[in-house]
Amino acid sequence: MGVIVQKFGGSSVADAARMKRCAAKVARMRHDGHEVAVVVSARGDTTDDLLELAAEVGDSLDKRELDQLLATGEQISIALMALVLKAEGVDAVSLTGSQCAIRTDSAHGRARIQTIDAARIRSELAAGRVPVVAGFQGVAENGDVTTLGRGGSDTTAVAVAAAIDADECQIFTDVDGIYTADPRLAPDARLLETIGYDEMMEAASQGAKVMHLRAVELGKKSGVPIRVLHSQREGPGTLITDEARNMETQRAVTTVALKTDIGRVTLAGLPNKPGLQRTIFAPIAAAGISVDDIIQTEALGAQGREGGPDFAQSHADTPPSGLCNVVFTVDKPDLAEVRPLVERSLEAIGHGRLHVDIGLAKVSAVGVGMQSQPGVASAMFKALAEAGVRIANITTSEIKISCIVDEADGKKGLRAVHEAFDLSATASEPRR
Amino acid sequence: MGVIVQKFGGSSVADAARMKRCAAKVARMRHDGHEVAVVVSARGDTTDDLLELAAEVGDSLDKRELDQLLATGEQISIALMALVLKAEGVDAVSLTGSQCAIRTDSAHGRARIQTIDAARIRSELAAGRVPVVAGFQGVAENGDVTTLGRGGSDTTAVAVAAAIDADECQIFTDVDGIYTADPRLAPDARLLETIGYDEMMEAASQGAKVMHLRAVELGKKSGVPIRVLHSQREGPGTLITDEARNMETQRAVTTVALKTDIGRVTLAGLPNKPGLQRTIFAPIAAAGISVDDIIQTEALGAQGREGGPDFAQSHADTPPSGLCNVVFTVDKPDLAEVRPLVERSLEAIGHGRLHVDIGLAKVSAVGVGMQSQPGVASAMFKALAEAGVRIANITTSEIKISCIVDEADGKKGLRAVHEAFDLSATASEPRR
Repeated sequence: MGVIVQKFGGSSVADAARMKRCAAKVARMRHDGHEVAVVVSARGDTTDDLLELAAEVGDSLDKRELDQLLATGEQISIALMALVLKAEGVDAVSLTGSQCAIRTDSAHGRARIQTIDAARIRSELAAGRVPVVAGFQGVAENGDVTTLGRGGSDTTAVAVAAAIDADECQIFTDVDGIYTADPRLAPDARLLETIGYDEMMEAASQGAKVMHLRAVELGKKSGVPIRVLHSQREGPGTLITDEARNMETQRAVTTVALKTDIGRVTLAGLPNKPGLQRTIFAPIAAAGISVDDIIQTEALGAQGREGGPDFAQSHADTPPSGLCNVVFTVDKPDLAEVRPLVERSLEAIGHGRLHVDIGLAKVSAVGVGMQSQPGVASAMFKALAEAGVRIANITTSEIKISCIVDEADGKKGLRAVHEAFDLSATASEPRR
Repeated sequence: MGVIVQKFGGSSVADAARMKRCAAKVARMRHDGHEVAVVVSARGDTTDDLLELAAEVGDSLDKRELDQLLATGEQISIALMALVLKAEGVDAVSLTGSQCAIRTDSAHGRARIQTIDAARIRSELAAGRVPVVAGFQGVAENGDVTTLGRGGSDTTAVAVAAAIDADECQIFTDVDGIYTADPRLAPDARLLETIGYDEMMEAASQGAKVMHLRAVELGKKSGVPIRVLHSQREGPGTLITDEARNMETQRAVTTVALKTDIGRVTLAGLPNKPGLQRTIFAPIAAAGISVDDIIQTEALGAQGREGGPDFAQSHADTPPSGLCNVVFTVDKPDLAEVRPLVERSLEAIGHGRLHVDIGLAKVSAVGVGMQSQPGVASAMFKALAEAGVRIANITTSEIKISCIVDEADGKKGLRAVHEAFDLSATASEPRR
C-alpha cells in the first residue's frame, strides 16, 4: 500500500472517452490498495483557444490577466475529471491551485512553486477521496493566479508528490516511456526500464520533449521516483530515479537526443576583460530568455585577425590575442528579441563582431556511465564523421556530449550516434 | 465625482466588439471623473457549453464540482474584460470571487453572499485601476467555489456596490430599462424614469425578467440606487430607488407583468389543524424549490363536499367545514419534483385531494400608489372581464394584485390591464 500521484496531460483528458480511461487507471490503483492523488492539465486545445480569445480582444500582453484566463483551462479539467471519477464510482474532489495553496512567486507565465500546503490533499486522501489537483497553476502571495509555464503540470505533479511524500509520481503521456532516442527519428530505438534524474535532465534539455526539465529537477531534489507511462496503452513505462540504480547496466550512453530550431549567436573579437560575460548575458536573463549552450574560446593573434567562425580550430604556437569569441544558442523564436540586446551590449563593449545563425540542430549523447568510460566522445565524433556530418560546435558536460550540426544533418547524425552506441532494440548487449 | 459599479451581462460581453462598447462606457464614466468598478457575467453561451461538457462526462449532479466548473465562465470574462480595458487605455485588474473574498454560504448552485472584503476593490480604485469582478461566484468558508444561481451576477454587482459604498450600481442589459409592461407583449409600453425597490421586486417576482429579485432586495436593504440600462444603446435607463421619490407621480399602478409557465398545485379538503402548512411546505423548501403564491381558503360544509376547484366562490351562511383548501404555484419545471413530495405529505395528513394544473399564467399590476388609492383591484377585474378573461385565482399584497388566468388569455389580459391604467406611451396624463 502506497501513495501514488497520477498526472494526466491535455491529450489524455481531451474527451469523455479518454477521461474514462484515465479514471479506470485511478480506480485500478485504488483497487490495488493505493491512495491516489490526480493532477490534470487543460484539455486538448483549451489553452490555445483561450489565447486566441485574448488575441481577439486586444494586443495587450498583460501576463497577470493571461494567467487569470489560462488557469480556467485546468479548472475545467479538474471539475470534469472529478465528475468522471464519481460517475465511475470513485469519490473525488477537485482542487484549484489556490484551494490546495500551491504558492508560487509572482513571475506570471513562468512562476516557480515555493510551497504546497499538503494538509488539504492529505485530508481528502484520509477521507477516502481522490483529490484532483489543477496542474500548471498556483497562487502568488497577493492572491493573484499564476501559471508555471511550459511543462508546468508535470512540475505540479512532482511537487504534489513531494509535498504528500508519495511513493511514486506517474506521468501519463502520449508515449510509452523514455526511449534510447525519439522513435520517430530512430525507429529502432529501445524503451528504457529506468533512467537517472541527471540523464533525464540532460536529455530533456537536449530536446527529448517527454518531460519538462523543471519537473525532473524537482523530482531529483525531493527524491520522488517519476514513472513516465502511456495514458491510453498498457505497459511498465520508464522509471526516472536515482542514478545509482542504473550503474549495474554499465552503459556509457543511455539516450541520444536531437534538438532542432536552434538559434546561434556568435560574438567574435571581444576584449576579454573581467565583466565581459556579465555585460552580454545580464540583459538576456533580465528579458527572461533561456540561453542554452555557452561556448567561449580565446582568439589567437595570428595574421592580425580576431578569429572567424572557425575559431575553435587549434593554431599551435600562436599566442592568445587578448580577444575572445563567445558563442551561445537560444531557441530560434527568441532570436528576434535577443539580437537587439546583444547589439546594445556590443556597443557598450566597444569592440567585436556579431553573427546570428539559424538552420542548426544539436545531437547529444547522454549517459551517466560516460563518467567512468573513456572514448565516448571520440566514438561519437567517429560516428558523425562516417555519416558525413560536419560538426560546427561541441560542448560537453560530465554526462553529455553535444554537437551542433546543420539542421539538415540532424536526423542522420542522431541515427548514426544511436547505432554507434548499440542502443537499438535489436542490439543484444551493450558494448561500451 | 462618485463611485459607480457597472455590470455587464453575458450577451454584453459575448464578443470582442461588444466588450469594446462596454469598455467605452467605463472609459466615459472615468473621463467624467468617477471611480468605476466592473462586474461581468460569463460570455454568451459559455455556461451552457460548460454544462454540456459536464453532461458528456457523466450524469453526476455533484453541485460542488459543477460550481467549480461554471465559475470558469466568469473568470474567462474578467480576464478578457481587463485586457480589453487595457487595450482601450483604461488600467484594469481582474478579480475572481475568491480574490475579492466574496464569502458565501456553502449552498452550491444557489449560494448567498454573506460578506465582501471591500479592501482589495478599494485599493485597486485608489490606485487608479478598474477592478473587474467576476459575477455569479463566491467562495465558501472552506475555500470551495460557489455560484449564486440565476441572476447571480446582478446580485454580485449590487453587493459590490454596497460593500464599497457606491453611488450607483448600473446594470447593463439587453433592454432600455423598466417598462410599464414588457414591450414584446404590450407594444405601447412606456419606459419608466424611476421605479421603487418594492415595485421592482413585485414586478420581478411576477415575471418581469429584467433584474433578479435578490439583487433588487439587496439594493433596498443596502440603499444602493440601481440603474437598468441598455448595454449597446444610449439612454438614461430606469433608476430603481427608494419608493418615496416616486410618490409625486401619483400613479396607482407602475407596471403590469405577465408570468407564464406556472404550475399550480391544489390541495382540497384538508383538515385544518395546527402544523398542516408546515407538513406541506417543509419538504418543498428542503428540496430547494421556490413556491410562488400560496392561497388558503376554508372550505364550507354545504352539500357535504369539501369544495371543488371553485372553492374561492362565496357561499353565504354556510359554516366552515373544518376543512380547508390550499393552492400554491411553482415554476412549471419544478412540478415533477413537487408532486411526489406533496403526495407523501398528503399521506401523512391522512385526508384530502390533490390536483395539479399547468397551462396557467399570472397577470399582475404593481404600484406602490395603490396603497393610498381605492378601486385599483376593481378596475383591474373590470378590465379583465371586458377582455373576456376568466380569473382562476386572485392574490394581493400591499402593492400588487395578481390574477391567475388561462395561459392562452395571458397576453390579452396584460394588455387590457396595461390600457386600463393608462400606462401606454401615448397616455397624456395618469388618471389614477
